[in-house]
This record gives sequence, structure tokens and C-alpha cells, in this order.
Amino acid sequence: MDPSFVVIAGAFAVSLRCGTICLVLREGIMLNTGILTISDKGSKGQRHDKSGEVIRDILSRIESTIIKYEVVPDEREVIASKLIEWADGSGVDVILTTGGTGLGERDVTPEATLMVIDKSVPGFAEAMRAKSLEKTPMAVLSRATAGVRGKCLIINLPGSPKAVRECLEVVLPAIPHAVEIIKGEVTEHTFQDAGID
Amino acid sequence: MDPSFVVIAGAFAVSLRCGTICLVLREGIMLNTGILTISDKGSKGQRHDKSGEVIRDILSRIESTIIKYEVVPDEREVIASKLIEWADGSGVDVILTTGGTGLGERDVTPEATLMVIDKSVPGFAEAMRAKSLEKTPMAVLSRATAGVRGKCLIINLPGSPKAVRECLEVVLPAIPHAVEIIKGEVTEHTFQDAGID
Amino acid sequence: MDPSFVVIAGAFAVSLRCGTICLVLREGIMLNTGILTISDKGSKGQRHDKSGEVIRDILSRIESTIIKYEVVPDEREVIASKLIEWADGSGVDVILTTGGTGLGERDVTPEATLMVIDKSVPGFAEAMRAKSLEKTPMAVLSRATAGVRGKCLIINLPGSPKAVRECLEVVLPAIPHAVEIIKGEVTEHTFQDAGID
Repeated sequence: MDPSFVVIAGAFAVSLRCGTICLVLREGIMLNTGILTISDKGSKGQRHDKSGEVIRDILSRIESTIIKYEVVPDEREVIASKLIEWADGSGVDVILTTGGTGLGERDVTPEATLMVIDKSVPGFAEAMRAKSLEKTPMAVLSRATAGVRGKCLIINLPGSPKAVRECLEVVLPAIPHAVEIIKGEVTEHTFQDAGID
Repeated sequence: MDPSFVVIAGAFAVSLRCGTICLVLREGIMLNTGILTISDKGSKGQRHDKSGEVIRDILSRIESTIIKYEVVPDEREVIASKLIEWADGSGVDVILTTGGTGLGERDVTPEATLMVIDKSVPGFAEAMRAKSLEKTPMAVLSRATAGVRGKCLIINLPGSPKAVRECLEVVLPAIPHAVEIIKGEVTEHTFQDAGID
Repeated sequence: MDPSFVVIAGAFAVSLRCGTICLVLREGIMLNTGILTISDKGSKGQRHDKSGEVIRDILSRIESTIIKYEVVPDEREVIASKLIEWADGSGVDVILTTGGTGLGERDVTPEATLMVIDKSVPGFAEAMRAKSLEKTPMAVLSRATAGVRGKCLIINLPGSPKAVRECLEVVLPAIPHAVEIIKGEVTEHTFQDAGID
């Protein structure tokens, strides 16, 4: 693989999407995102959603608009219903969830996600855990998953603000291109040399 | 993430659980563990269980009591029944299995484990394989898995003594905290900054 | 683990299978391989199968014979049928697929593979993604999987020639031994110290 190509593609896809890279990407797309915070306390107004704020902050680095935001309790059916609602009828390209990925009895976000996705994309969670593992052995305890439902990418992020920041930074560079592929806005050849065909 | 916090939490949770860290962990818990060795030959008394001994040796580094130990043949139903018996009615907090994770026809430990767990915890096996991969390309051949059944954590370890040692050392630091979360003995905020909420 | 042993085993299993290593491996086996290229355009003759050529090139490094080769469209049932045909009745030891592992609507190779395998072998895909991730954050977008059906190992590779080369080189050293285990041609002790029992 030509490293210079990859570096350019990776960097420009995020930071300079309307510049030179448009020759490659055809057109910069504006991502419609949804943030779903999963927290029993948050849903009762008993806790401020710092993790949701971190996601907003990091998403501002790419061309995106947050068109959905909600805080729901750690209930599998509630989470699954919300994911379906956003993915199917709201024009949301990417749903980022935060919370409910741990080993606690109430942690059911991965199960809710697996209920609704058509295709699993294991690389997102693997990469996040591998990166976190460099900092703490506790990283193995995140049960996050990711996948595609229809034309919508769904990625679980951890619950704590610090972990959300760390993990989202790992996967952010791949999100715009992922959405372009899912929506069929990239020809199959475009990124062929980047190895993701 | 504050590296100093993580380092302290990771180290003390294992080695100084009754010292300063108790301020964080509320109280050191004594883990009740079970060792399930899966081996056709071992179950017939034709092979000494060195891998089980390695697990005992390494578990002695944390506050734990081995309350169950058994050697069973590579039979899916037998393994699954034993996991259910220990997880549901014996007060076992963590079951460590050894053996049966390879590609042989008789290797069915991951399948037996997947049959009985409520929640998958993919990070344990990913971390073990990634670490082993630094030493040998054969590491990809371990099909180990891990998950939670009720209040019990189940982790598959490989079959060979050397691999057991290597893999258990990778995940050991996360086991006590994992059990505390599973048993609900840690508040959701305690380790929030370690990114495992 | 004794590093010298591992290095020797890893290297000789690939490059000197009929030399000294035969003392360890009992006998070098000749792998019967199948290359299944999954590509809508390729199956209509509209695209040259460069990725298949890359696989041929790399397979020439180990003692193997390509006994099956075909290009099929990105249709789940077609792919699954071909995998079953080759795995069950053709003496193919290893099937390497290329293509259809991405996030596009037509990408269904992992789903077809999961339909037909008896046992999942997650380490192959984890290792390929981890290695690719060192070069590009887009590596998380490969949904490749791997597993065993009967006596046949099936591994998904990406679609682009460069990614195929990179990924196959990661897992190639483990393939001959994997096949020996699957076929029962290695005693359980042979590679015990390599940690894959």
C-alpha cells in the first residue's frame, strides 16, 4: 500500500473534505448524526450528560450536523426502538451511542444494537478496545459493538467522558468514508488502494 | 484519561487490594473461582493437568479462593452443564476454563461457552490473542471467548501451560473489577474515569 | 514460551516444510486450496481479477495446489453454495475468498461465510484488521470473518489487491498448521508449546 496515499486520504477525508480530496471523494458529504445517550440517571434528569457533550465536541471536527439527540434509560427495548426509529425514518447517517456497554446488570446497549443491525462491523470496537488497552487493562471490559442498519451506521461508545473521547478519536477518521460507502456515494474503485473494498 | 489514575487503579486492584485502593474500591472482595479443565485424556486420568496448576499459581496473586475444580472431556453438553452448575448455584464468581479452544474436531469449549452466557465480553479474548500474536502467528488459532452468565464471569483460556500463563497474565488485572461490576459492588462512578462505565 | 522454538516453528512450517521441521510436523502436507473471488463485475467478465492473482502469488510460498478457482457475483446464496460445494465434496483444505467484505449494500461475503461455517475462528480477521490499522484508520471497515466447515478452513480476505497482499501475509504462516489440526494430522502435543492446543 502506498503510505502517502493513505495518509492523504485519511487526513483530507476529515479535515479538508472540500479541497483537493474532492477529486477523490467526488463530493464532500455532510453527515447527519444522532447521539443516543443511554443512562438510567440521565434519563431521569439526575445526571448531566457530559459524554454527549464530548461527542458533540469531537463531531465538530468533521462536516456534520447533529439532527437527533436523546437520553434514554438502560432498557433494551427502548434503546432498540430508538435506534430503529432514527435509522429507518429520520435521515440519520450515523448514530453514536454512549453508555451501557459495561458488565453491569443494566448494561444492555450491545444487545440492543445487535438486535437491530443488518451487518456487523467488528473492526470499530476492536480498534477502540485495542487503543484503550494501551492505557488500561480495564479496556477489555467494554462490550461495545457496531454495525449497519439499512443506510445508517451505528457505533457504541463507552459511557465515561474520557473513554468516549479516546474511543471516538480512534474511529472518527473512518466514519465519513464508511457513510459514503453505505450510502453508495463512492464508487467501488475510489478507495480500492486503501484496502477497504 | 489520567494515566496516573489508571496505573494506580490497575496495579492496586491486583496487588494491594486492602491498602489505599480500598478508598476507591469500597472494599476488597474475595473472588470465588472455579477452574474447569477440558481434556479428553485428562478426564480419563491419562494426563496430568499442568494447565490447571498454572491457573492456581497465577490466581494466588489476587485475593481469591478456588472453590471448584474439575476435569471434563471435550464434550459440548458436558462442558455447558458444568458451566451452568457452577455459575448458577455455587457462588462461583469467575470460571476459568483451559483447553478445547483450538481448531480440532473435538475442540468445542467456545461453543459450549457461547451456549450458556447471557452477555458476550469479546475484549478478553481479543486482548489475549493480540498479546500472543506478538510472539507467534499461531495465536490466531485460539478460538477462546468470554462472557457473563448471571453473576458469574466465564473466560476461556488456551490448553497449553505456557499459553495459559501468558494469556491469564494479560487479563488478570481486569478480573477483580469485572466481578465487582457484575455483582453490583461497585458504584457506577467508581471507575468512570478508567473508561469502563 | 520459548521464543526460539516459536520462531523455528513459524518459519519452517512455511518455508522448509520438508526439512528439519518434518521432525516436528511429522510430514509436510500439501495444501489443496480454493480461491473464490466475489465481484459482480468480475463475474460478468468486466473486471480483471488482480486480487485472485495476488493470492496465487502468495500461496506459491507454501506447499500448495490451487484446485479450485471461480469468480462469483456478490450474492449471498451463490457464495454460500460455492463454499459448501468446495468444502464438502472437493478435497479443498483452505478456501480464500476475496471481495465483498466492505460496508456496501452488495457486500455480503461475511454473512455468506457465517451461514456455512461450523466453528468461528475470529483470530484471523482480528489479526488482519490490527495489522492494517497500523497503516490506515480505514482498516476498521473490513468485515472479514473466518471459520471451519467440516475439514475445510475458510478465510475472508478484502477485495483490493494491496489489501489482499497485506492481509494474507499476516495469516499465511498459521494456515498450514491450522489445516493439519483441522484434518487431525497433528497430535495434540506437537504444537502445545506454541500455545494453540
